[in-house]
Amino acid sequence: MATDSFKPIVAITMGDPAGIGPEIAAMAFSRESIYRKCRPVLIGNADIIGAALKIIKSGVKISVIKNIKEAGFRFGAIDVINLGIENPGEVRMGEVSAAAGDIAFRSVVKAIEMAMNGETDATVTCPIHKVALNLAGHHFSGHTEIFAHYTHTPKYAMLLADKKLKVIHVSTHVSLRQACDKVKKGRIAETISLLDEGLKKLGITSPRIGVAGLNPHSGDGGLFGNEEAEEIIPAIEEARRNGINAEGPVPPDSLFALAAGGRFDGCVAMYHDQGHIPFKLSGFAWDDKKGRMKKVNGVNITLGLPVIRTSVDHGTAFEIAGKGIASPGALLNAIDYAVKMSRK
Amino acid sequence: MATDSFKPIVAITMGDPAGIGPEIAAMAFSRESIYRKCRPVLIGNADIIGAALKIIKSGVKISVIKNIKEAGFRFGAIDVINLGIENPGEVRMGEVSAAAGDIAFRSVVKAIEMAMNGETDATVTCPIHKVALNLAGHHFSGHTEIFAHYTHTPKYAMLLADKKLKVIHVSTHVSLRQACDKVKKGRIAETISLLDEGLKKLGITSPRIGVAGLNPHSGDGGLFGNEEAEEIIPAIEEARRNGINAEGPVPPDSLFALAAGGRFDGCVAMYHDQGHIPFKLSGFAWDDKKGRMKKVNGVNITLGLPVIRTSVDHGTAFEIAGKGIASPGALLNAIDYAVKMSRK
Repeated sequence: MATDSFKPIVAITMGDPAGIGPEIAAMAFSRESIYRKCRPVLIGNADIIGAALKIIKSGVKISVIKNIKEAGFRFGAIDVINLGIENPGEVRMGEVSAAAGDIAFRSVVKAIEMAMNGETDATVTCPIHKVALNLAGHHFSGHTEIFAHYTHTPKYAMLLADKKLKVIHVSTHVSLRQACDKVKKGRIAETISLLDEGLKKLGITSPRIGVAGLNPHSGDGGLFGNEEAEEIIPAIEEARRNGINAEGPVPPDSLFALAAGGRFDGCVAMYHDQGHIPFKLSGFAWDDKKGRMKKVNGVNITLGLPVIRTSVDHGTAFEIAGKGIASPGALLNAIDYAVKMSRK
Repeated sequence: MATDSFKPIVAITMGDPAGIGPEIAAMAFSRESIYRKCRPVLIGNADIIGAALKIIKSGVKISVIKNIKEAGFRFGAIDVINLGIENPGEVRMGEVSAAAGDIAFRSVVKAIEMAMNGETDATVTCPIHKVALNLAGHHFSGHTEIFAHYTHTPKYAMLLADKKLKVIHVSTHVSLRQACDKVKKGRIAETISLLDEGLKKLGITSPRIGVAGLNPHSGDGGLFGNEEAEEIIPAIEEARRNGINAEGPVPPDSLFALAAGGRFDGCVAMYHDQGHIPFKLSGFAWDDKKGRMKKVNGVNITLGLPVIRTSVDHGTAFEIAGKGIASPGALLNAIDYAVKMSRK
């Protein structure tokens, strides 16, 4: 039985080798504290990880393993499932390449395979680059879609999580006009239910869910838009009939301030930016003197999958890759969420 | 010539008498500090203001005046331009009524008239209630539209301002679908220019303006939506040709975190919630134990008018009206912005 003392096996993929993925992974594996929480294993390329350890001046060693049974899970020797790179010379820090996209992609597919085989309890992903992915002939718009495809999952959703806000999205990577078309009762009800389930997996026993409207002021009683009356309210009513404590539609410009203040445990956003704008404002902090983000704590969790997958909610940050100055904050948080979910 | 020692005449309208307007106005007029910044005059009903002073236990008196020439502008005696209420018995704290909507409306119209006649330097408005307004037969969706109508202004825009963020909107009170239709080069260029002008009036000599995309990731190179290429980029180019330091389209979920960190002085939001969500998350703080907002600092400024108009960016808060617990924070900030703009 899973208890608080149970240490799940967590696979961490290194992400695009030209980005900050390998170095933030190296930073995480160089902290003894993560070994107290879980049994971590790194999936990627041993040479890349070795270079990343040098960049961050870590004294930690690498132990290349062929499969999970060989893993020692000991602090000081990172267990690496090593995948080869076809054209290693093509990979340059901060540059898009097919070679980088390909190794990043194969790391993720390997992690999914291991999770589906029950060899790992959870997967945490470092950032990949969509253009590199596509250059390498892997036509996915991101991790979420790769996981959905290889786990054969039709109903899934992206949850953004930090201490203050948990936000799920009815749609993500579509135009705003298409996002309006996707505001349909069935999908909204499904998303509310995925959030309720997800929050419970994160340890919230009776989640209070706030559902956003689509239009300003939730349409102001039909004055500007009727998606609230036609789609959102019926979905909330269905969720409530199923025993979910969902409220709304809450005016979009109030919902996130209310949730950040503790009024709701989770929010349902009707489109990508409705959720991403408050989430990034809350979790990111820009340092204008240094010209880079000084705080990036957000975690991205795919709900609805048969396996546990969490991720940092930032990109490859090519502009600072290889400098050893990236923050591992989001990755450490993503590992924490993965551990928490593994115990449920 | 206007200098820092110049004290502008600032008219403050009391707002809907059933809401928190009169009590926050009474709080502001009970602070000697506002008399050091400006020469304030209250527009509304003397009985209502008298009751509000009792609610907040203020020792300040009222001096009813007929016109601005009679004003003493002395702390301790609020100069009130007194307007009669037709059915005063109809006005009840926290309740919508035509009588309340009518006096609120006439206070605003009187303030506009005084501003247009040059009797005042700026107007600061307390919240009105749209339903009350319409019940009283005044068919406007808010202050902004009343000001535009009575000052015959065709091109105007709503700027939200607090210490961290200044956000102007390409459109406001329309459905999200209609808002997509309003993302047009001409209107965007006009809005960028209004923001540039407004920021200069607020004392920023060389404003750096960030213009949001409409779609997630600003459309990701046309993958989801092409409004960026067809409308937004041409508008930014036009603004730059006119000497405005505008950048973008910035991905909407990055823009506000960047601006809050000092990367931009002002933001152009493509629709109501794109700007209002981050602004309210940044400026409002919900107190879940007390079940009310503990901080509301946002200011709403109408740009493009021939007169200066600032306002609190919160509503009538009927649920706490008459209790003396409302925060005057936003009103004090709105007065500060009005003073600053009067000096330019």
